[in-house]
Amino acid sequence: MILADIGNTNIHIYKNGKIFNIKKPQKFDEKVYYISVNKDKEKEFLKLNPDAVNLKNYVDFKTNYKNLGIDRIMACNTIQNGVVIDAGSAVTIDIIKEGIHQGGIIAPGLFAFKEAFVKISEVLRVEYKKIDLNSLPKNTNEALIYGSAGLIINTIKKFKGPYFFTGGDGKFLAEFVEGVYIKDLVFRGMIKTIKEKL
Amino acid sequence: MILADIGNTNIHIYKNGKIFNIKKPQKFDEKVYYISVNKDKEKEFLKLNPDAVNLKNYVDFKTNYKNLGIDRIMACNTIQNGVVIDAGSAVTIDIIKEGIHQGGIIAPGLFAFKEAFVKISEVLRVEYKKIDLNSLPKNTNEALIYGSAGLIINTIKKFKGPYFFTGGDGKFLAEFVEGVYIKDLVFRGMIKTIKEKL
Repeated sequence: MILADIGNTNIHIYKNGKIFNIKKPQKFDEKVYYISVNKDKEKEFLKLNPDAVNLKNYVDFKTNYKNLGIDRIMACNTIQNGVVIDAGSAVTIDIIKEGIHQGGIIAPGLFAFKEAFVKISEVLRVEYKKIDLNSLPKNTNEALIYGSAGLIINTIKKFKGPYFFTGGDGKFLAEFVEGVYIKDLVFRGMIKTIKEKL
Repeated sequence: MILADIGNTNIHIYKNGKIFNIKKPQKFDEKVYYISVNKDKEKEFLKLNPDAVNLKNYVDFKTNYKNLGIDRIMACNTIQNGVVIDAGSAVTIDIIKEGIHQGGIIAPGLFAFKEAFVKISEVLRVEYKKIDLNSLPKNTNEALIYGSAGLIINTIKKFKGPYFFTGGDGKFLAEFVEGVYIKDLVFRGMIKTIKEKL
C-alpha cells in the first residue's frame, strides 16, 4: 500500500512506515490512496496511477470552516484536543476541541518568510536558529527570526495545547513550545480514514 | 526645508508639513536633510543633492541593538514609552522604555505577506480587512489575514502600550489595538534631531 500526500511543493509518499518526498508524480505498482491540494500535480499523478483512491471522498470530519484543505483535515483527523501545526510551504494552525475543528490560520512557511525578507531588502537575510522569545532581539538576525517563527509561536501559544507539529519545519518550531512532533501526522489521518471507511 | 526618508521601496518627502512619496531621487532647491536605508538610492540622491545632510551623523539614540536602521531610530526618537510600529515594506516593532530602546522585531509588510501567500499557492489570495482576532477564522481569506496581520498584532499585544503606528499600513494595523497613527512619526524624529543638534 502506498499513501500519497500531493502538496503545493512536494509529494510526500508513505510506504511501509517510511516517508519520502518526490518532486514529480511517479507510477506505483501497489494500491495507492492519496490526497491532494494541487490540481495540476494530481492530474499528472492520476494519469500514472489511474486506480488511485482519493480519500477526500471518504473522510468524515466536523468543521464550520469553508473549503478546509484536505491535508489539514487529515492532519487533524486523529487529534481530539489541541493545536495542530503543519509547517511546510505554508504553516497552518488548526484548533480542535473534542474532535471538532474550531477554525484555523494560514501563515507563510519559514522558507516563504526568508524569501519575503530578502525581497524587501538584500540585508534582511535570516538564518533560523532557536532564540528566546522572552527577551527582545538585539540584532537583525534575531529580529527576523522573531518576526517570522516568533510571530507564529506567539500566536500558537494563545491557544491551549497540547501542540502537535508536523511538516518540514515542524521539529524546529516544536522546540519553542515543547510541542510534540509527529512526522506522519497527515498519514495517520489517512490510515484512520482507510480503516474506518474502506 | 526638505526632509527625505529614503526607504527600501519609496522615498518619503516632508515639505511644509506635508508628506508625499517619490519612487526615484530628484533634485530639490531647498536645504535638504535626509536619512537612508537604501545605499543605491542614497548615492543617486546625493548626486542630485550634494549638500544634503545625513542626520544619521547627528542623532543621539540609546540602544544595545546592533545596526538598528536609521528609519527605526527616527521613528522611536520622539517616544518615551511604548511600542513603535512602522508598517511599510517591512513591519518593524520597537519597544521603548523611559526613552531607551529595548530591542525590536522585523516582520514582512502586509504586501510582502500577500505576495508570499500567492507564491505558495495560487488559491491563497488575501484581501485585507479588519477581522476579530478573538474568534477563529472559518474561511481562507480570514485565515490568511490572521496568518499575517493577526500574527503581527498578537505579538504587538505581548508588549505594554501605548502603540504608535506609522507607515503605509499603519492606519489599518492600528485599528486592531486602538493604537495611535502618526503619519509623520519618522519626520518628527528627524525634526527633533535638527532642533537639538544642528
